[in-house]
Amino acid sequence: MPPISPLLLEDLAAVVGPMGMLTAPGDLPAYTADWRGAHRGRAAAVVRPASTAEVAEVVRRCHLAGVAVVPQGGNTGLCGGATPDETGDQVVLQLGRLRRIRDVDPVEDTITVEAGAVLRDVQASAAAVGRLFPLSLGSEGSCTIGGNLATNAGGTAVLRYGMVRDLALGLEVVLPDGRIWDGLRPLRKDNAGYDLKQLFIGAEGTLGVITAAVLRLVPATPRRVTAWVALPDVDAAVAVLGVLREHGGSNVTAWELMSHEALSMVLATASQARNPLAAPHPWYGLVELAGPDGAVGLTAELEAALSEAFARDLLLDAVVAGSPAQRAALWSLREGISEAQNLHGPSLKHDVTVPIRRLPAFVAATASALDDALPGVRLVTYGHVGDGNLHFNLSLPPGLDPAAFLGHSGRLSKVVYDAVAAAGGSISAEHGIGTAKRAIAATYLDPVELELMRAVKRALDPRGLMNPGKVVLPG
Amino acid sequence: MPPISPLLLEDLAAVVGPMGMLTAPGDLPAYTADWRGAHRGRAAAVVRPASTAEVAEVVRRCHLAGVAVVPQGGNTGLCGGATPDETGDQVVLQLGRLRRIRDVDPVEDTITVEAGAVLRDVQASAAAVGRLFPLSLGSEGSCTIGGNLATNAGGTAVLRYGMVRDLALGLEVVLPDGRIWDGLRPLRKDNAGYDLKQLFIGAEGTLGVITAAVLRLVPATPRRVTAWVALPDVDAAVAVLGVLREHGGSNVTAWELMSHEALSMVLATASQARNPLAAPHPWYGLVELAGPDGAVGLTAELEAALSEAFARDLLLDAVVAGSPAQRAALWSLREGISEAQNLHGPSLKHDVTVPIRRLPAFVAATASALDDALPGVRLVTYGHVGDGNLHFNLSLPPGLDPAAFLGHSGRLSKVVYDAVAAAGGSISAEHGIGTAKRAIAATYLDPVELELMRAVKRALDPRGLMNPGKVVLPG
Repeated sequence: MPPISPLLLEDLAAVVGPMGMLTAPGDLPAYTADWRGAHRGRAAAVVRPASTAEVAEVVRRCHLAGVAVVPQGGNTGLCGGATPDETGDQVVLQLGRLRRIRDVDPVEDTITVEAGAVLRDVQASAAAVGRLFPLSLGSEGSCTIGGNLATNAGGTAVLRYGMVRDLALGLEVVLPDGRIWDGLRPLRKDNAGYDLKQLFIGAEGTLGVITAAVLRLVPATPRRVTAWVALPDVDAAVAVLGVLREHGGSNVTAWELMSHEALSMVLATASQARNPLAAPHPWYGLVELAGPDGAVGLTAELEAALSEAFARDLLLDAVVAGSPAQRAALWSLREGISEAQNLHGPSLKHDVTVPIRRLPAFVAATASALDDALPGVRLVTYGHVGDGNLHFNLSLPPGLDPAAFLGHSGRLSKVVYDAVAAAGGSISAEHGIGTAKRAIAATYLDPVELELMRAVKRALDPRGLMNPGKVVLPG
Repeated sequence: MPPISPLLLEDLAAVVGPMGMLTAPGDLPAYTADWRGAHRGRAAAVVRPASTAEVAEVVRRCHLAGVAVVPQGGNTGLCGGATPDETGDQVVLQLGRLRRIRDVDPVEDTITVEAGAVLRDVQASAAAVGRLFPLSLGSEGSCTIGGNLATNAGGTAVLRYGMVRDLALGLEVVLPDGRIWDGLRPLRKDNAGYDLKQLFIGAEGTLGVITAAVLRLVPATPRRVTAWVALPDVDAAVAVLGVLREHGGSNVTAWELMSHEALSMVLATASQARNPLAAPHPWYGLVELAGPDGAVGLTAELEAALSEAFARDLLLDAVVAGSPAQRAALWSLREGISEAQNLHGPSLKHDVTVPIRRLPAFVAATASALDDALPGVRLVTYGHVGDGNLHFNLSLPPGLDPAAFLGHSGRLSKVVYDAVAAAGGSISAEHGIGTAKRAIAATYLDPVELELMRAVKRALDPRGLMNPGKVVLPG
């Protein structure tokens, strides 16, 4: 890439106005490193357009000048997908000013939002018309819809509602050469040719910049029943999923799993946190069923499921949340794991999926192999067991130097990813590839798959200027 | 394309064996015309491979020879997508022998099937393990999963479960050059790079041949409540959707609409059919809620919804099915429309979507404009109103000569598609493009969209040998 010219920077400033352009060194670090500080780069400028037309004009001018563009939303990603490289020649395209809720329509059951809208604001806009926008994840207070779509975000309600891909009806996208594709249609059925929006969802901004989306809303589920359970092992967690579905059908909204190690970290670091059960147990599960106000039987469904699970020796203990506050306390234990682990020092994160029936063998074999590889390594295992998705994270053993721990990272991660591959799983369940998993993707993905991805990249971004170096490298 | 050589035919016969190759003129017509006889072509051969490896070898040899391949499943499509062209130089790749159910897994809640498996057999295999494969459409007794995926089939349960795209977890695909892409993973979450399966779903075989799929199963819904209602107008149909959702939430599985004209055709042609209500009404709706055996309250939900709809003057009459036989009779009225219309002589079919809130104005304006264009033209309007999808079909006015009627087809269809475009709808909701709507797509789709589709086609099929001439033509 050529170094960026002062003339281009002036042009871009003219497009976005003085509010929309940051070039002073002190203003840039918030955008050139990710929130964890795990990925750091440099940028020629951070450009903050306030309309789709401005995004298109910025991208068009960068394309003409041969300058690479790095789209960025809330900067809450975990794989470096929104971080510029080290050259300082890339432009960060920050979408935070493009944040309008354009339309909420309870007849169509859709919401039309701009890319920079924060997920929590989208949820609130849906709730204001008596609907649910079901995407829910830890960073929902700061992540943006554009980033959610670009990474095909998952979260805690995938079991019932799917990934954000399943909630997207239409997109507006600025293509790598600055053209605008207006696919902002609210249609449930549209088979008029290839479904182009699928290309951009989950592509991490490498094929174009999502500037707006029409998203599906679903019936609100103000009635919820929530329970925290103790489980002897992962086999039981898989079996309980079947019991829950049998009794709760599609009302089952969440089935989350945590190891005792994961809960311990939360209890050790969050002052408000306490174990909901009297005694410690090897594994814990968080189950939730939800339905509309008029729904009867949610409690009966949950109680029938728990009874059967106890009768089949799948549960060791259980507590049902008796109030919204108790429910919130249970969820905060689950949602506090990531932060608690960060407070414990460096960690190695593995966001993986394996077929659900293979989870027990996968967890057992991987735990054993990791302990062989680094005796005492702490396994902070938790995740969305109903989706086969584990955050199979590692923390350093007591007494080990953090730098020494990180020195083992390649070897430890290889143990995990080899096991994922052997189980027919995915090396990235919901966090994407970015730069963090690029080499891992190149190692573990089928060569045919990599070639297809490169062919798609070349077709849509022949000059390779749209978030280059992310997801897939030129062959 | 070059004419096919006898040597290649010998090669293909060697690959698939004597059972797998048809070249005698008498054997071909069943595969070179669609089931309605609306699309007719010729073929050098019909090749019927029995394994993925055979498909790959057939495609590889055709690719080397520069011969075009036309994939075909149950040949039940409505847009000519599986019909070869007139040259007689193309090879029809018929997938009916590739029909194994490879695996049904009630823990994973998945079914793994080969492309030629008939939809009804897939449904039955799911039911045998206590699960539901929710895709359901009129041709389910003969259409195949490969064709369902290639056309992104919809049907009568989209409101609750989505299109077949939403049910697909993984695919196995033979690429245009004969390589096999093994993406046959049963994972709910997989963000390891671009979601390649999305490219092939709905591409009508123009980017590769789907040979197998892993599909999602959902909880069985043996409990169903079904009602037939009379409606004053389409406004009421849209409003009732809101009432149904409010009371039934995600239990609402179907909300179908039929005009009186559509029902009349069924009553006039099907000897068993009778109007479920005492008097005729302008519009009819078919509603269904479904849940697991243990579900309580389905009847209460339906009754509450109907009561509210009556109180708000949205309904003129209603009858709730009292037995499985009554339910089947109601559904047969809805499902009999297509056949009844065919018995009435030539018809013009328009499978379109418009935003749900625009349905009333769309139907009114289009009906009026059509009557201006051809006084007395019969509007056989029905469809999946909960999805915004209407089959806005036309039959000839009494007394008009069929050929004269068909002579008006361009002018009449233009009225419909202009109105769809004005309403921000789609010219193809669930039937695809094939060859039938290729010119319409070229007229009504955004030029940027057409260019993107062509770029994808060139990237995956640079020689243009995979079902050429379907969906999108080279620019």
